[in-house]
Amino acid sequence: MKSLNEECGLFGVWGHPEASRITYFGLHSLQHRGQEGAGIVANDAGALHSHRGLGLLSTVFQDDQSLAQLSGQAAVGHVRYATAGGDGVNNVQPFLFRFYDGNLGMAHNGNLTNACSMRRKLEEAGAIFQSNSDTEVLMHLIRHSKQTTFLEKVKKSLQQIKGGFAYLLLNKTEMIAALDPNGFRPLAMGKMQNGAYVFASETCALDAVGAQFVRDVNPGEIVIVNDEGMRIETYTKQTQLAICSMEYIYFARPDSNIAGINVHTARKRMGRKLAKEYPIEADIVVGVPNSSLSAASGYAEESGLPYELGLVKNQYIQRTFIQPTQHLREQGVRMKLSAVRGVVKGRRVVMVDDSIVRGTTSRRIVKLLKAAGASEVHVAISSPPLKYPCFYGIDIQTRKELIAANHSLAEIRQIIGADSLHFLSEQGLIEAIGLQNNAPYSGLCLAYFNGDYPTPLYDYEKDYQKSLRTC
Amino acid sequence: MKSLNEECGLFGVWGHPEASRITYFGLHSLQHRGQEGAGIVANDAGALHSHRGLGLLSTVFQDDQSLAQLSGQAAVGHVRYATAGGDGVNNVQPFLFRFYDGNLGMAHNGNLTNACSMRRKLEEAGAIFQSNSDTEVLMHLIRHSKQTTFLEKVKKSLQQIKGGFAYLLLNKTEMIAALDPNGFRPLAMGKMQNGAYVFASETCALDAVGAQFVRDVNPGEIVIVNDEGMRIETYTKQTQLAICSMEYIYFARPDSNIAGINVHTARKRMGRKLAKEYPIEADIVVGVPNSSLSAASGYAEESGLPYELGLVKNQYIQRTFIQPTQHLREQGVRMKLSAVRGVVKGRRVVMVDDSIVRGTTSRRIVKLLKAAGASEVHVAISSPPLKYPCFYGIDIQTRKELIAANHSLAEIRQIIGADSLHFLSEQGLIEAIGLQNNAPYSGLCLAYFNGDYPTPLYDYEKDYQKSLRTC
Amino acid sequence: MKSLNEECGLFGVWGHPEASRITYFGLHSLQHRGQEGAGIVANDAGALHSHRGLGLLSTVFQDDQSLAQLSGQAAVGHVRYATAGGDGVNNVQPFLFRFYDGNLGMAHNGNLTNACSMRRKLEEAGAIFQSNSDTEVLMHLIRHSKQTTFLEKVKKSLQQIKGGFAYLLLNKTEMIAALDPNGFRPLAMGKMQNGAYVFASETCALDAVGAQFVRDVNPGEIVIVNDEGMRIETYTKQTQLAICSMEYIYFARPDSNIAGINVHTARKRMGRKLAKEYPIEADIVVGVPNSSLSAASGYAEESGLPYELGLVKNQYIQRTFIQPTQHLREQGVRMKLSAVRGVVKGRRVVMVDDSIVRGTTSRRIVKLLKAAGASEVHVAISSPPLKYPCFYGIDIQTRKELIAANHSLAEIRQIIGADSLHFLSEQGLIEAIGLQNNAPYSGLCLAYFNGDYPTPLYDYEKDYQKSLRTC
Amino acid sequence: MKSLNEECGLFGVWGHPEASRITYFGLHSLQHRGQEGAGIVANDAGALHSHRGLGLLSTVFQDDQSLAQLSGQAAVGHVRYATAGGDGVNNVQPFLFRFYDGNLGMAHNGNLTNACSMRRKLEEAGAIFQSNSDTEVLMHLIRHSKQTTFLEKVKKSLQQIKGGFAYLLLNKTEMIAALDPNGFRPLAMGKMQNGAYVFASETCALDAVGAQFVRDVNPGEIVIVNDEGMRIETYTKQTQLAICSMEYIYFARPDSNIAGINVHTARKRMGRKLAKEYPIEADIVVGVPNSSLSAASGYAEESGLPYELGLVKNQYIQRTFIQPTQHLREQGVRMKLSAVRGVVKGRRVVMVDDSIVRGTTSRRIVKLLKAAGASEVHVAISSPPLKYPCFYGIDIQTRKELIAANHSLAEIRQIIGADSLHFLSEQGLIEAIGLQNNAPYSGLCLAYFNGDYPTPLYDYEKDYQKSLRTC
Repeated sequence: MKSLNEECGLFGVWGHPEASRITYFGLHSLQHRGQEGAGIVANDAGALHSHRGLGLLSTVFQDDQSLAQLSGQAAVGHVRYATAGGDGVNNVQPFLFRFYDGNLGMAHNGNLTNACSMRRKLEEAGAIFQSNSDTEVLMHLIRHSKQTTFLEKVKKSLQQIKGGFAYLLLNKTEMIAALDPNGFRPLAMGKMQNGAYVFASETCALDAVGAQFVRDVNPGEIVIVNDEGMRIETYTKQTQLAICSMEYIYFARPDSNIAGINVHTARKRMGRKLAKEYPIEADIVVGVPNSSLSAASGYAEESGLPYELGLVKNQYIQRTFIQPTQHLREQGVRMKLSAVRGVVKGRRVVMVDDSIVRGTTSRRIVKLLKAAGASEVHVAISSPPLKYPCFYGIDIQTRKELIAANHSLAEIRQIIGADSLHFLSEQGLIEAIGLQNNAPYSGLCLAYFNGDYPTPLYDYEKDYQKSLRTC
Repeated sequence: MKSLNEECGLFGVWGHPEASRITYFGLHSLQHRGQEGAGIVANDAGALHSHRGLGLLSTVFQDDQSLAQLSGQAAVGHVRYATAGGDGVNNVQPFLFRFYDGNLGMAHNGNLTNACSMRRKLEEAGAIFQSNSDTEVLMHLIRHSKQTTFLEKVKKSLQQIKGGFAYLLLNKTEMIAALDPNGFRPLAMGKMQNGAYVFASETCALDAVGAQFVRDVNPGEIVIVNDEGMRIETYTKQTQLAICSMEYIYFARPDSNIAGINVHTARKRMGRKLAKEYPIEADIVVGVPNSSLSAASGYAEESGLPYELGLVKNQYIQRTFIQPTQHLREQGVRMKLSAVRGVVKGRRVVMVDDSIVRGTTSRRIVKLLKAAGASEVHVAISSPPLKYPCFYGIDIQTRKELIAANHSLAEIRQIIGADSLHFLSEQGLIEAIGLQNNAPYSGLCLAYFNGDYPTPLYDYEKDYQKSLRTC
Repeated sequence: MKSLNEECGLFGVWGHPEASRITYFGLHSLQHRGQEGAGIVANDAGALHSHRGLGLLSTVFQDDQSLAQLSGQAAVGHVRYATAGGDGVNNVQPFLFRFYDGNLGMAHNGNLTNACSMRRKLEEAGAIFQSNSDTEVLMHLIRHSKQTTFLEKVKKSLQQIKGGFAYLLLNKTEMIAALDPNGFRPLAMGKMQNGAYVFASETCALDAVGAQFVRDVNPGEIVIVNDEGMRIETYTKQTQLAICSMEYIYFARPDSNIAGINVHTARKRMGRKLAKEYPIEADIVVGVPNSSLSAASGYAEESGLPYELGLVKNQYIQRTFIQPTQHLREQGVRMKLSAVRGVVKGRRVVMVDDSIVRGTTSRRIVKLLKAAGASEVHVAISSPPLKYPCFYGIDIQTRKELIAANHSLAEIRQIIGADSLHFLSEQGLIEAIGLQNNAPYSGLCLAYFNGDYPTPLYDYEKDYQKSLRTC
Repeated sequence: MKSLNEECGLFGVWGHPEASRITYFGLHSLQHRGQEGAGIVANDAGALHSHRGLGLLSTVFQDDQSLAQLSGQAAVGHVRYATAGGDGVNNVQPFLFRFYDGNLGMAHNGNLTNACSMRRKLEEAGAIFQSNSDTEVLMHLIRHSKQTTFLEKVKKSLQQIKGGFAYLLLNKTEMIAALDPNGFRPLAMGKMQNGAYVFASETCALDAVGAQFVRDVNPGEIVIVNDEGMRIETYTKQTQLAICSMEYIYFARPDSNIAGINVHTARKRMGRKLAKEYPIEADIVVGVPNSSLSAASGYAEESGLPYELGLVKNQYIQRTFIQPTQHLREQGVRMKLSAVRGVVKGRRVVMVDDSIVRGTTSRRIVKLLKAAGASEVHVAISSPPLKYPCFYGIDIQTRKELIAANHSLAEIRQIIGADSLHFLSEQGLIEAIGLQNNAPYSGLCLAYFNGDYPTPLYDYEKDYQKSLRTC
């Protein structure tokens, strides 16, 4: 269980005659949040049907036929990122649970921190899990709940799970959205021309289906949509906003807004801040495609240096299984990224990237630029050093793999072969994102940078404490 | 035959122990030149083997096994763009011809203008063609040639074919590269660390395999590589450089150099020229991804306006077969391109694109930007209006489909819904590319803009004259 | 739930270094028992892994790689027959259940008659089912059981389920086989050269893997195999042998022995009995391929008539998706079965078949023989008329679809267009099979013929009673 | 070229609105003649279209869509058997040749004996072959022919090719069938209800599409079918019937008639003859499935011994890629064939098979029967010993691989482990087939048995003579 630590994308719609098709297009714009699996559960006049599979959305849904089978006016969908292996299609969401008293679809983005202990308790009471995902815990809690109404069962169960979660539930008569007390994962609500309500992990999915943004779902909220309309309730009052700052830094699509802030614009401001904090004498600014192009153009504008296409990403790399051997790599064979010789040759380059995890990618790119003739390569990172793991849904699991948890700035610079290395300050990041929140709280989760987790770590606490002693 | 009018990518290597694998990685960086088919012919100590198929390179070569079967020290490869239909895998190159006196592989980029009449003559003499591609004509000419040596046969045959062509031939003992007398299509030569010679349609493929650029193959040249080394000969002296200007404008990869000029840099200069020719009062500059980003950043720098990410392209659009219905498109459902509401809302936008063919795409993007709140959209095109078809290898076949051949500038502006519309001047384009050539020749083919074809049109002449009268 | 009524094949092995491979070959010889899905769960030193999928075994396991991942010394496998639709791979067995205290694999052949009511009770207690198969009920009963040892939990749970079942269970330390109190479904035990124990639905699977037959598992028995060896216990004393007679008639492979009786030999005796009960004046005897060839040769030998190949089955019919339209069928286009004109023309034919369900197949074959020139066609069926549904695992679900439940012998003869029609008598069938059992019990389930069900029908009782009144 | 030595199936129809569909069903019943590739060329009002691919017909044509694209009133189809490797889909027939003056489809069953030398001559004259099949030679001859009409070109070309061939040609206005001067390969003509003419390698394909048998195409004949009707001409008078006797022995389907003789009936007579020539003291007669079941039942009837199902063939062996390792085979693991222990145990078995090629299969089956308890195994072969290769279209290429070319009867018996071994005499075979022909000619090709080839061997002569000296 502890090995599952994932980022995902959610989409749901209630009240559209082509609900599963709308969900398909919504998920399509969220594909960057998960490429390992996809699925849709549709509600056709109370009957729930499901289709899911491994791989990209376009692999799982190969033709109109696959969607045509999912008729009905409501649907929830999911795209999934997961580390290799796992148990195949069993863990692909949304889950569709079948009961004598009605079926239920469930999709989840985030990571529960007490899933392991809850699962053990439930199994001791006779529960049988069908996946090894943490997601399913909520369903067992609901079914074991002694509350009288379904909504009360759900609320009571949400109070028992901990960590980061955005949930979409679909049953015979309603769709329910719920967000954890810290709002780690984004979840936006929109409305279509015909009045249908839509939920999506990012607002780019609302745009993709032509829906108007209504509002973000807030921490501790539970939103119920049915044929009568939409209403918002809360299952807990103990909330404290802590949006995952990595969403702004590299995860979300640049055209999405999170908490009212456009992601591209925030990134551009990170680049500007970085240029102010660390002005560098150089000839050109180059961004690492694709996620760092916004920050790089911000850096260029603030610094007055020209913004150049010094690195090109091969757009056909997807689904390419043949890779260069080590031997060929040493001879200069490469597939993914190319340095533009005609641009960087003889130039002093500021290379802007969004983050450094292991350092291997940065080292490779610096080497690439130098091999193409760059006279100097200055690495400017538009976020602070990553030093601590995430337990709320991003796949950074141990301190061991984080270069900044184990090396000084000078060491990292040397390892990646840069002429200089700079990270955006934590304060700079907070200001660049510009979330209006009540001090002293930034409204952001910055735990990867400072170890300041907004919640207890529950099942992860022990291993985490141990890792602090060894790394 | 006349319906085949294609752009393609070539790669060849002689003298590397992993020749087919090197060719795979070379072709991978040329995939943008053709996505409909791919293939490799390898020479294993004189025995030629082939593998080819429909679709992307990664579809045709799914695993290392498929390459392992193509052992040997030399190989030629091809990626193919073709209009839908055709005759399936039969037309996918390289062709492998089998003869009692030795096999021969052949790959071609370009389009012959006298293929139809030559084929008829050859068939009347008993020839049987195995494809409906123009490429094969050369092989039949060679086999029917009365010359004594193979090289003389090839030279004589090259003199008989007309139009645009870059050819790679591979036989038991040598690899031969040849370029048409106008050099319409680019063809570069490189050398690997171990001394192996490499040919590629673009220099980005040399970079991809770690090869050093040696020189471009020139018009009328034939280059022979064998175990003794490389030598350059000519099959005609009547040459006149006329590089396809569309290669610079939108076709080639930005990291390639053609005739010594970096493509990204040329595009940026086109953007700068455009800003000088047409300064526009606006708030931001937005490029249409991906081919127009360089020109847009040039425009931004010259104009002093901020360069913004106002349009986002979905990177998962490849191989997605489910498309929004007309009905859903009207509701705002879209997959490929999104306007970034948070960036363009309330702004006056300069939208930079590389060209306008039918005008439908431009209209769609203008509409997208306005729907996202842009207050004005000014369309700036970094090339002159396309008015004439290409007969040398680009898929623009009739005047009928070209909006600029049938409408005035004012009409086009209105059709696409722009607040203003500007095209780069022909002279501006020539200067932006900056090819050093003997006046009065620009060294470029600009026929799509001015109808000034560098060669007679042969089999196409009659239909072309007719089209001038009707459009 | 009630819609699932299936025939399947089981195989298990404990103690062989290539357990999953052995299971693959065992299942391969049981493929005739189920073509809709297949799977294997293997135990690798206590860790259980699973692979399963839709379609034939050769589709689910496409290469050695797929088996190599299932390493370990023990495995259970399953092939599944199911009516179209269902819920895809979720219902494919063996199921692999994961618990904090160890995983468990489970495979089942048969049909439970109280699954529906048991499931409702379990769900009311909080249980969540992952399939809509009846199989899973046993697992939930085990997990909810208050017994102290695993074996006691299993025994107690087996006492609660009703109907026809052969179960194979695999956990960390042992494999368990269990048979229902009537032994409706066959289950044989064997031993390999190296001492490994093997279980299989039919003895042909023991032969296929080179195992020696040890004994059949008996009604009410539970057999435990672990590293210490094998031991046999019982979970109930209230047993009464009632082997499904359809196994002998058409379901089992002719090279299998059930309860010590060879299936081919039993079928040949059915043919002989039939010839004795109904001698027919004719020229040749023809069997309907493939299941009726044994009975036909028995009829031929007893009657003294020559046994001829009058009908040929196309052996490439598998996985052929294109079928003749009604229009083409009327023109005589056919794919599956051909009458041999050169054999039947002008002859009086005794056509031997094993059973008549709807009568449509018989009518088609009679027509085929007459179209090929047969002067008379006498249909001889080597079993009594099918009049009642099966609730223990064969897919005959309602009386409505059974021609003999709704028509007299004379009517059926007329419907199928035969010159005469004869069924083997119930007593003839019992004698032909020749099971040595204590009178008055035949040791066989003959309920499809006489409605004499060996057990109460539980959840099916109500619908069954209703069907007796309407058909 | 010499490596291609193949058996194939042909089908063609002229004058049916669903010609390609009819061809599909015709080919489906000829699938036993070739499983490596399949294709159809259809004529739609003069326009020829083609679809072909590797694998079974059901793989190449996966859905109705693939046939719907081949509309038109005429079609020719082909199924191909070929030794592994080859050049993939290039060699799959029918070939579709495209010419400025009209396209042409061509399909061939048989093997040319002068293809190699003819191809060399044609290539020296400039011809380019697109396959490495011998088939294509005819097309080049036709195109190089100086005759004035197409029919004369075809006739002249047919006179130049040697060996065994049945050809179907389809052009804009007609379908042409042609047979070699010895009629090695069968080719039957039929007529559908609507008047459409049909050609097929075997009459079972006529039955499959509801066509009436008209007559066999005779040696040296060329049959032309067009919208005016059908007419028969000859291209040579020097003919001598020599039907491949292996068609009767094992190749053709039992429901086919060749030269008016039913194949099953001929095989049954071979079994009877064998029983007369070699009466054996035994308990039961067992045929090797599937091809020897007719001969075995003939043997049983003549000898008075019971005919038993002593060997069972797994009907799911097709497309199964996982095979038992040598190690597992030694442990008794097997997939394809099982001996029925309950039938053969303690019995003296006459095992009837149609032929012995290498002897390995026979040895394996004898071993299987003995392992299952047979007390004696007497092998009776319903044809004479195979001692010489075939050059007319069957894949027996060298004497080296033929056990009877290298060992005495006593040695073979010992090698295969039989208690006795008997072959049908050549005279017995001739009488069993019972072709009415003018003595001294049998009308059969018996060269595999006696080395008496009905024609010169041309390109094969040299190697053949050499093989006589070494084997």
